[in-house]
Amino acid sequence: MRLAHITGSPPNPSHFAVLVRSIPWSPEQSYSDLVKQFFINYYASSYLSHQMVFDSCTVHKLVTDAYKMLQTPSMKQSSTPSLIRCSICGVSPNSFKMLSNDPVKDKVDLDSTTSEEGASAFVFFKTRYAAVVASQVLQSSNPMLWVTDLAPEPHDVYWSNLCIPYKQLWIRRITTLLAAIVFMFLFLLPVTFVQGLTQLEQLQQSFPFLRGILKKTVVSQVVTGYLPSVILILFLYTVPPTMMLFSAVEGSISRSGRKKSACCKVLYFTIWNVFFVNVFSGSLISQWSVFSSVKDLPTELARAVPTQASFFMTYVLTSGWASMSFEVVQVFALLCNYFTRFILKKDPSNETLSFPYHTEIPKVLLFGLLGFTCSILAPLILPILLVYFFLAYLVYRNQIINVYISKYESGGKFWPIVHNTTIFSLVLTQIIAIGVFGLKRSPVASGFTIPLLIGTLLFNEFCRQRFRPIFENHAATVLIEMDRQDERNGRMEQIHHQLHLAYHQPMHTSQDSSKGERSNHSEDGDSIQDPEDLKPGKASTLVNKS
Amino acid sequence: MRLAHITGSPPNPSHFAVLVRSIPWSPEQSYSDLVKQFFINYYASSYLSHQMVFDSCTVHKLVTDAYKMLQTPSMKQSSTPSLIRCSICGVSPNSFKMLSNDPVKDKVDLDSTTSEEGASAFVFFKTRYAAVVASQVLQSSNPMLWVTDLAPEPHDVYWSNLCIPYKQLWIRRITTLLAAIVFMFLFLLPVTFVQGLTQLEQLQQSFPFLRGILKKTVVSQVVTGYLPSVILILFLYTVPPTMMLFSAVEGSISRSGRKKSACCKVLYFTIWNVFFVNVFSGSLISQWSVFSSVKDLPTELARAVPTQASFFMTYVLTSGWASMSFEVVQVFALLCNYFTRFILKKDPSNETLSFPYHTEIPKVLLFGLLGFTCSILAPLILPILLVYFFLAYLVYRNQIINVYISKYESGGKFWPIVHNTTIFSLVLTQIIAIGVFGLKRSPVASGFTIPLLIGTLLFNEFCRQRFRPIFENHAATVLIEMDRQDERNGRMEQIHHQLHLAYHQPMHTSQDSSKGERSNHSEDGDSIQDPEDLKPGKASTLVNKS
Repeated sequence: MRLAHITGSPPNPSHFAVLVRSIPWSPEQSYSDLVKQFFINYYASSYLSHQMVFDSCTVHKLVTDAYKMLQTPSMKQSSTPSLIRCSICGVSPNSFKMLSNDPVKDKVDLDSTTSEEGASAFVFFKTRYAAVVASQVLQSSNPMLWVTDLAPEPHDVYWSNLCIPYKQLWIRRITTLLAAIVFMFLFLLPVTFVQGLTQLEQLQQSFPFLRGILKKTVVSQVVTGYLPSVILILFLYTVPPTMMLFSAVEGSISRSGRKKSACCKVLYFTIWNVFFVNVFSGSLISQWSVFSSVKDLPTELARAVPTQASFFMTYVLTSGWASMSFEVVQVFALLCNYFTRFILKKDPSNETLSFPYHTEIPKVLLFGLLGFTCSILAPLILPILLVYFFLAYLVYRNQIINVYISKYESGGKFWPIVHNTTIFSLVLTQIIAIGVFGLKRSPVASGFTIPLLIGTLLFNEFCRQRFRPIFENHAATVLIEMDRQDERNGRMEQIHHQLHLAYHQPMHTSQDSSKGERSNHSEDGDSIQDPEDLKPGKASTLVNKS
Repeated sequence: MRLAHITGSPPNPSHFAVLVRSIPWSPEQSYSDLVKQFFINYYASSYLSHQMVFDSCTVHKLVTDAYKMLQTPSMKQSSTPSLIRCSICGVSPNSFKMLSNDPVKDKVDLDSTTSEEGASAFVFFKTRYAAVVASQVLQSSNPMLWVTDLAPEPHDVYWSNLCIPYKQLWIRRITTLLAAIVFMFLFLLPVTFVQGLTQLEQLQQSFPFLRGILKKTVVSQVVTGYLPSVILILFLYTVPPTMMLFSAVEGSISRSGRKKSACCKVLYFTIWNVFFVNVFSGSLISQWSVFSSVKDLPTELARAVPTQASFFMTYVLTSGWASMSFEVVQVFALLCNYFTRFILKKDPSNETLSFPYHTEIPKVLLFGLLGFTCSILAPLILPILLVYFFLAYLVYRNQIINVYISKYESGGKFWPIVHNTTIFSLVLTQIIAIGVFGLKRSPVASGFTIPLLIGTLLFNEFCRQRFRPIFENHAATVLIEMDRQDERNGRMEQIHHQLHLAYHQPMHTSQDSSKGERSNHSEDGDSIQDPEDLKPGKASTLVNKS
């Protein structure tokens, strides 16, 4: 299906473009000249043109301030027609450099005196094949210079991250990973509180004044059955924005990459904090002791999962069924709209939302995991899940077709996450099965489950060998065939012409920053606001205004 | 240094060649035609020629037998000018196919009626850059077809593995990994026996009849001090050939790849069985319990390492110093020579050996690990190690320059193993340091070791980002510059001419197989005999004979 998507889609500018990062800094030449020289030198036959990424991030204001401060009367005569290049996006450690008469060759009609070239550029090639070659081959003998990647789709580019120096990225990645892990474990506090609520006696002991109320059957039923999931869900609502923030800091070059990274983080988070913490019901220490004795894990799981089955069933009801109605009604978007209209007394933006993959995919996968693992000892969860998946099919289908708009196509890049999680669920189920048969003292059944486990792992390995590379790279032969077809139809000229106009970097000067921020509020269905979230059309009008 | 090696070396045929495996099987065309068609279609500008790999493995005899059986009188008239293609090297499940008048276009002057085309081929390109592009780009939409890799050097090709169907490789890799792990743990039996010998009381209990002899001081000193290491070393001598066998089964396409894989396996094996097993001195169960409680690991290590320091010192003396003299004298090769000359009454081969990287690198790295880890609590090992490393420098330098011949250049591909092991040793040392300071109740010193640990890991990560890609791929710009220089000097034509002659597949028919086997006995300094181990010159004479 991914291959059919790639071959069937109309000519895509991202197939012809390569994002070059970490262009080495040179005192004699501008970045633009360096890029041109490099690609004309080494890719003369296929190089078409390039477009610099301008550093219009948060440093912009700092730079203009510094520019004003530097222009003291004594310096003015020498540096009036000068440009300040901010090397926070560059490689060299000297932070400001005055250059006189530096020609900035930008393809976009931007006012060049208010923007600075970053160490990144989009390079356009004549054919898809040339672009994919340039993106996959190691360019320089220093692998941290001239880093090439296939460019994201024009609407998918996460502009503000393109200015991040490439050398920072691996540190950012490690830091984000650590932060996400710390967040995962700190989140245990509300979860253990929720766990406490399910045990009524414990609650009465800690809060004696509640004893009167809790004795009523209705209240105790609500408290033990329904309230824990509701509190858990409310806390869980804070997770996707946090993970999205982490993923933005991580420095991915595309929105879809950021969303995919956030999706993974949310998924690990959900599986750990909803499934494992509830199964091992308790504090950090008891969990560790369970995981430190690997041999007893199947038995422990087989003992613990059925006891929590009723909680999981309620969770499916509250989080699964209820979230479907939430999804249809779009409560949060509605509340935001009312808030801006009646409290802030402003005209709400009419932007439609894009599908929140990073919240919905982990949710669906978690329910899949619950279904698999509970199916052995608590199969009553299965009809409830069946209803959920049926509802989900209808609701998501409707939402994707009629409600959300898709600004970019990720081309099935989320599928490996789904595949891997399903394999993980299967393996976990089989481990639990081994534990259950062990508890029932049936070594034969237990023994026969082990080949099943090995078979699952081998199947996963086969899929990794057979299908994974397609999700990571484009196949050369497919691209060459597409190139040839376009050439035969004479569409190449037209595509090359469109390439120049495809990538518009939105520029922000001080007067339009407020408007820019407002107009793209809740772009991704989360609270991360990024000032580069404009459509190209809107961006160009803003630039023209400035 | 690797970059300097690549740019400084004379034109290397392996830079221009790509090994294509898993060519899809087609009933209409031969593999050779398919390869030609594919590369002329997609790489028209850079494709030079190709050379099929012939399936002259162990199936050869089977095929000729089958050929004779199939040629019953009734079939003879239809299939006389036919070729049997053995699809054990191909993709299709039908195992024998009769094809009449199939033209085999082979570049080598081989008798085509006695050999079958395999599903692999060497494809030669006009430039180094084209070859590296073809090797790095994903060719087909099915990643298990048209698999391309940069070809190994002509002498480095491991011909018999080229016939292995690509689809088998991942299963082979998993199987080999599991076999190596099982071997690693089964090896514990002699090691625990050796450990038992170091404790004299235990020995006297289990073998009461030895009590009289063991009471003598000389005997007891030899038994406790020297014998354990000797027995351990004797057992350890069986490890490299076994690991080499595993690596050969694994299916690497080059001798250097096989040696590198064996080197890794021997290294893990040595570190586990010499260091960890001795430190935790004992049976499988007690080791597991140590590793299952991660928190106590530093303390356990800090307690266990000093107690074993005397054993390690003896080990350095027996295995380190003594092995140096063994290395100089070449006892094993000498014994083999005497054996063939005086017992088998045959003329011994005058082949010189190539450097046994897979035995020597793990040895040196193990001594590094011992030095690092013992340096905190038993620094007396350091002068002994210093002498060892000084001796090793002299001996290995002499051996590499004057004794061994290097048939192929791996271009520093072993360096990442050395780097990673050194980082591992450092991290282990720092963990032990934390444990030691914990035992001495100095939380401040213990706390200050943690940033050191984090710094080491960050340094490793930086090196991985900065230097690792060069070891995995060639940089495009470097290769393009080399191509241009050759073109400017007019050497390209000559290189292209040499390419055709570079890769000679040694062919074995029944009459010369015995000679082939004899002449390359102990090719790699180990006992794995492979019948394709001939030099091109020798190979061609053999072919002419047949």
